[in-house]
Amino acid sequence: MDMHELTRELKVRNDSKIVMLVADGLGGLPLVPGGKTELETAHTPNLDELARRGVSGGSIPVKPGITPGSGPGHLGLFGYDPLEYRIGRGALEATGIGFELTPQDVAARGNFCTLDAAGNISDRRAGRIRSEESAPLAIELRKVKIPGVEVFVEPVKEHRFVVVFRGPGLAGEVHDTDPQATGVPPLEPKAMNSASQRTADVAAEFVAQARKLLASQKLANGLTLRGFSGKPALPPYEDVYGLKAAAIAVYPMYKGLARLVGMEIVGKAQTIDEQIDVLTEQWKTYDFFFIHFKYTDSTGEDGDFAAKVKRIEELDRAIPRVTALQPTVLIVTGDHSTPSLLKSHSWHPVPTILSSAVCRTDRCTAYGENEAIHGGLGQFEAKYLMMLALANAGRLGKFGA
Amino acid sequence: MDMHELTRELKVRNDSKIVMLVADGLGGLPLVPGGKTELETAHTPNLDELARRGVSGGSIPVKPGITPGSGPGHLGLFGYDPLEYRIGRGALEATGIGFELTPQDVAARGNFCTLDAAGNISDRRAGRIRSEESAPLAIELRKVKIPGVEVFVEPVKEHRFVVVFRGPGLAGEVHDTDPQATGVPPLEPKAMNSASQRTADVAAEFVAQARKLLASQKLANGLTLRGFSGKPALPPYEDVYGLKAAAIAVYPMYKGLARLVGMEIVGKAQTIDEQIDVLTEQWKTYDFFFIHFKYTDSTGEDGDFAAKVKRIEELDRAIPRVTALQPTVLIVTGDHSTPSLLKSHSWHPVPTILSSAVCRTDRCTAYGENEAIHGGLGQFEAKYLMMLALANAGRLGKFGA
Repeated sequence: MDMHELTRELKVRNDSKIVMLVADGLGGLPLVPGGKTELETAHTPNLDELARRGVSGGSIPVKPGITPGSGPGHLGLFGYDPLEYRIGRGALEATGIGFELTPQDVAARGNFCTLDAAGNISDRRAGRIRSEESAPLAIELRKVKIPGVEVFVEPVKEHRFVVVFRGPGLAGEVHDTDPQATGVPPLEPKAMNSASQRTADVAAEFVAQARKLLASQKLANGLTLRGFSGKPALPPYEDVYGLKAAAIAVYPMYKGLARLVGMEIVGKAQTIDEQIDVLTEQWKTYDFFFIHFKYTDSTGEDGDFAAKVKRIEELDRAIPRVTALQPTVLIVTGDHSTPSLLKSHSWHPVPTILSSAVCRTDRCTAYGENEAIHGGLGQFEAKYLMMLALANAGRLGKFGA
Repeated sequence: MDMHELTRELKVRNDSKIVMLVADGLGGLPLVPGGKTELETAHTPNLDELARRGVSGGSIPVKPGITPGSGPGHLGLFGYDPLEYRIGRGALEATGIGFELTPQDVAARGNFCTLDAAGNISDRRAGRIRSEESAPLAIELRKVKIPGVEVFVEPVKEHRFVVVFRGPGLAGEVHDTDPQATGVPPLEPKAMNSASQRTADVAAEFVAQARKLLASQKLANGLTLRGFSGKPALPPYEDVYGLKAAAIAVYPMYKGLARLVGMEIVGKAQTIDEQIDVLTEQWKTYDFFFIHFKYTDSTGEDGDFAAKVKRIEELDRAIPRVTALQPTVLIVTGDHSTPSLLKSHSWHPVPTILSSAVCRTDRCTAYGENEAIHGGLGQFEAKYLMMLALANAGRLGKFGA
């Protein structure tokens, strides 16, 4: 059963304030077995105090053993079952560069590739062409004109770009044109169903015109398209939770994900201190605040244990300004773990604190992976966190008489 | 998947005895952060001993954050997914006053209301008319005669009553006639589907005749009907678990809920001691005993922390007489938490003990919310408790070869 059927039915409005502070990739691993994780190593007096006052647990982003990308990781925290709500690669890529999709859009991720004289792919990534060279080519592709359809092309990194087709009658079920092999030509865009036929035709026309525009290029004289997808249909926060929600994020991807669930993007903060400034300014205007802290993930991805520890300490120093606002419910969590040992996202549960006046405090005395195991929230799927937040804020009525 | 498909397939009969002792609203909260809950405050040497010998855990009544009413709370403990099996308000109201529904019945909750000269509602609750005044009016409505349908009307509290229509061809999908507003007339009973058209017609006829019977009243000269619903189709204990089950409860609501899952109501106990008398008398006749202790909930609802503590101690003193019967499996739990701090049901997990010779004891040394967190059952959805009970009783065979 969709939990939003329940929250929609039971939701109650009041003056409570909920803050969800997401430290991206927060969970970690010790560098040596039995050692301390990044979070356990960091000096975090404020988060430890929060753990003492709140209730702790381990958030499982999707299901045990499943390592999520940023999309599913955040959807879970936002209360959307990441296995039910899928964001296509094209739509996620567009979201990640700050492109605001409309319901009329179909997005695809494009790769520049190298074609030989026979039209077969000789390099699927156009020799990993540098961004400086590929960006002008992506912009060149904006010259493509297709009747009845608006075409948007946005450069991404290296050989990547995003193309968005906007118009009536477009659906996203079109197969990738990347054959995942060299020595063969790119595939034709092929619709999976009749509703997507027009998208396939439009994509074919785009490719044809693009090939002409790229014909004189040495490296990037061809292209493939992957992950065709429309704007995901996510019921908005206001509808499912009765929450007027704001997102305070620095990076386009997280602003985009928040926008997909109906949050408003507020402020132009660049640092965590500026993010808390925005939180303070907007305090009266919204019921729910999503604050995204990126650097625990990026340092983890870099494999830089010490830097991740420092970033966690930076986050810790920001906590007193948040608690000073006296949120009804304050949650500190992450969308997934990014252990610096692994230099990548991982499946490990994310230590999580929920603090409220009625949270039923446990005996945890610090914020950390091992401590959270003994917390009163136990291990739980991230998708239930919003229900706990609403309950603790007095925003969920009784189910059944 | 419905867990009953599994239990039905795997169930084994033997001579074991299972006792489920439900302390209604047992879970609580400390009055001050970091303090002790009602259960942790109470002196409970017998329950603590049971915790030492058994395995503990936290029962989540429905899903994290969801606060259940008595219906879903008990269905979960009985092993019926409360999200799958919904009991309509009318059926629950009838159950709560001890009215035994048959499959031919449709029940609705009635409210007396006050209508002005134009027939519009001026007070949706008839000035919260006192029970002494409204009960005779409800009984007056028994004069309504509808061909082919038996009509039952039972007074409830204040402006409330229950009406049950009994006859062939009645289905429960009829919209409420309460417009949830004043200054407008009650709505006509409207069927949601053709199978419920006859119910809507019967309800309309009931209302028409009732209006005539009430015409001379000042306060309660009108009525609205809500929560039309038939008897919920719950497969009985005998069928899904192979258990001959008895319920030893004091209040009609819990007898009614037990009856809905096929338990037999035994004894006429009024106190927990009398309930244990009945348990002792019936020991040889049944496989499973549900014992309901109401007062942990009612004291919680009253916000009376000290009284709830006392009631828990009263329950504790009853334990030795239960263990003396040497049940194969003894479970102590609650249908939900009712913290006196909140004066209402809540979503918090309910501390639960399961004791048997094969339960795999954990290190818990007391019965309490914080202790249960570290228990061997972890946190689990209430609907799985019956499966654990059956397993510990040797009543579930192996799944697959």
